[in-house]
Amino acid sequence: MGKRIVIALGGNALGKNLAEQMDAVRTTSRAIADLIGDGHEVVVAHGNGPQVGMIQEAFAEYHRNHPGSDLMPLSMCVAMSQGYIGYDLQNQIGEELDRRGIPVHVATVLTQVAVDPADPAFLHPTKPIGAFMTEEQAKAVAAEKGLDVMEDAGRGWRHVVASPMPRQIIEIDTINALLDGQHAVIAAGGGGIPVIWEDRYHLRGVPAVIDKDFAAERLAEQLDADMLIILTAVEKIALNFGKENETWLSEVTPEEAEEYARQGHFAPGSMLPKVEAAAAFARSKPGRTALITLLEKAREGIVGETGTRFHM
Amino acid sequence: MGKRIVIALGGNALGKNLAEQMDAVRTTSRAIADLIGDGHEVVVAHGNGPQVGMIQEAFAEYHRNHPGSDLMPLSMCVAMSQGYIGYDLQNQIGEELDRRGIPVHVATVLTQVAVDPADPAFLHPTKPIGAFMTEEQAKAVAAEKGLDVMEDAGRGWRHVVASPMPRQIIEIDTINALLDGQHAVIAAGGGGIPVIWEDRYHLRGVPAVIDKDFAAERLAEQLDADMLIILTAVEKIALNFGKENETWLSEVTPEEAEEYARQGHFAPGSMLPKVEAAAAFARSKPGRTALITLLEKAREGIVGETGTRFHM
Repeated sequence: MGKRIVIALGGNALGKNLAEQMDAVRTTSRAIADLIGDGHEVVVAHGNGPQVGMIQEAFAEYHRNHPGSDLMPLSMCVAMSQGYIGYDLQNQIGEELDRRGIPVHVATVLTQVAVDPADPAFLHPTKPIGAFMTEEQAKAVAAEKGLDVMEDAGRGWRHVVASPMPRQIIEIDTINALLDGQHAVIAAGGGGIPVIWEDRYHLRGVPAVIDKDFAAERLAEQLDADMLIILTAVEKIALNFGKENETWLSEVTPEEAEEYARQGHFAPGSMLPKVEAAAAFARSKPGRTALITLLEKAREGIVGETGTRFHM
Repeated sequence: MGKRIVIALGGNALGKNLAEQMDAVRTTSRAIADLIGDGHEVVVAHGNGPQVGMIQEAFAEYHRNHPGSDLMPLSMCVAMSQGYIGYDLQNQIGEELDRRGIPVHVATVLTQVAVDPADPAFLHPTKPIGAFMTEEQAKAVAAEKGLDVMEDAGRGWRHVVASPMPRQIIEIDTINALLDGQHAVIAAGGGGIPVIWEDRYHLRGVPAVIDKDFAAERLAEQLDADMLIILTAVEKIALNFGKENETWLSEVTPEEAEEYARQGHFAPGSMLPKVEAAAAFARSKPGRTALITLLEKAREGIVGETGTRFHM
């Protein structure tokens, strides 16, 4: 029986530039078409770290060089990154489905995601975007442009922005309507366009980039999905990752996962938010399963053969 | 009885920068909410001339200053402009509908539009994008960057790109599914992401910007719409526009419109493509009406009280 599945694709898994993106998206599209061919309803959320950073930087430079031009708000940069990545994904997933004769359409839904204006994340930027820099470059950029910078999981230094928690996927009815109409849907790209409710009616963009794993989790809950799949660079998550006593995990309860997280087994900004999102989804309702695995293992993971599965 | 209506919004009517856009879109959203409140099914197509020009220029400069970075293809710039403008439109139309308690959702569909690779437009760029320049600035840009430039309808000089005719709206099933699911839809933004069929399955982006009036016409035909509304800066079109013997037109057949066009009554790149698109829609099937008028006259125009109406 087909499941309703939300898949979170890593920003870095989409490549760091356009050539890498088009290659990575080809591989990704084949794996996603496999799942759609198996009869699952699929919603794809994706990251945008490198892309939104590049977009933001290009417009910031343009604004400095052309004083009359717009200073592009970060929320608009996220909207543009949904166009940039969504177009490529829908084009290539659509082609894969066509080649296989699978009668499912693919659409990208521009998605706003409401956050809490009082979210403490606005005071403590932690989400890395854009290109990697050396510590020296980063500190020069921070001094010159007044940006926040941080070391990112041992891979180099990057510009960091606020990353509040997603509270509400605004276009949820659109995504549901398309799933009902035989579509695979690309939604909440880059974690969604970050907005706050200013009053009962008005949604205002805010300068932030929402974590795509948490946005996918919110999306999966609101869509009453059966499964949340968070794709990453390892087949399973591990305790004592990279150490002699490394232990791969196949099945965890949300409580176990949270206890392991408290013990410091998962890297902040890297595996930790994935584990937290997976645990939150598994805890949200009986019968819901979250899976963390490699793209090429997703199909086996769905039927319980690999990956780390989170359920109550 | 509600009609199915495709509305083409002018790129310039969206403003030439972000502040102008947010203001213009507010007014536009109220007028569109009026039509939805009247029970019409509404699809909005929009231009992107100033926006896609700005996006293209920002990335071209970024690429020149950062040799390792991507040279952003024009098709990707169009995809980003759909995010940039679509987000603002769906946000503000959605708010307007909510305030009025109208239970219709709003969604932006990233839209690819197939063109003919043999379209002669690829050899003769005619579509102005980006900022206006003086003749001197334009010729310097042309010489320095190898871009095509042209005088734009008496308003100044601009960069020009190929503008092939739209042949097929790729995401037509998505738009139909959303109309069936109580949505107003924003689609074919900026004339659509220009693509060509490379073989039976593969759609490749091409460097072009499709005219939004022709894209809206194609969209209206493929959706079997009752009406195509092309919004512009005049309430009606005129023969001998701006001259002593100026004559406003209320009703024309496609044949009359084409004859007037041949006689040179409509400015190329300005009113001419609107008249051609309106005539093509009116001729495509009995019962179909095209309307050219002002945004604030659309509601009266639909019931036949103003504007220029094209029908057989």
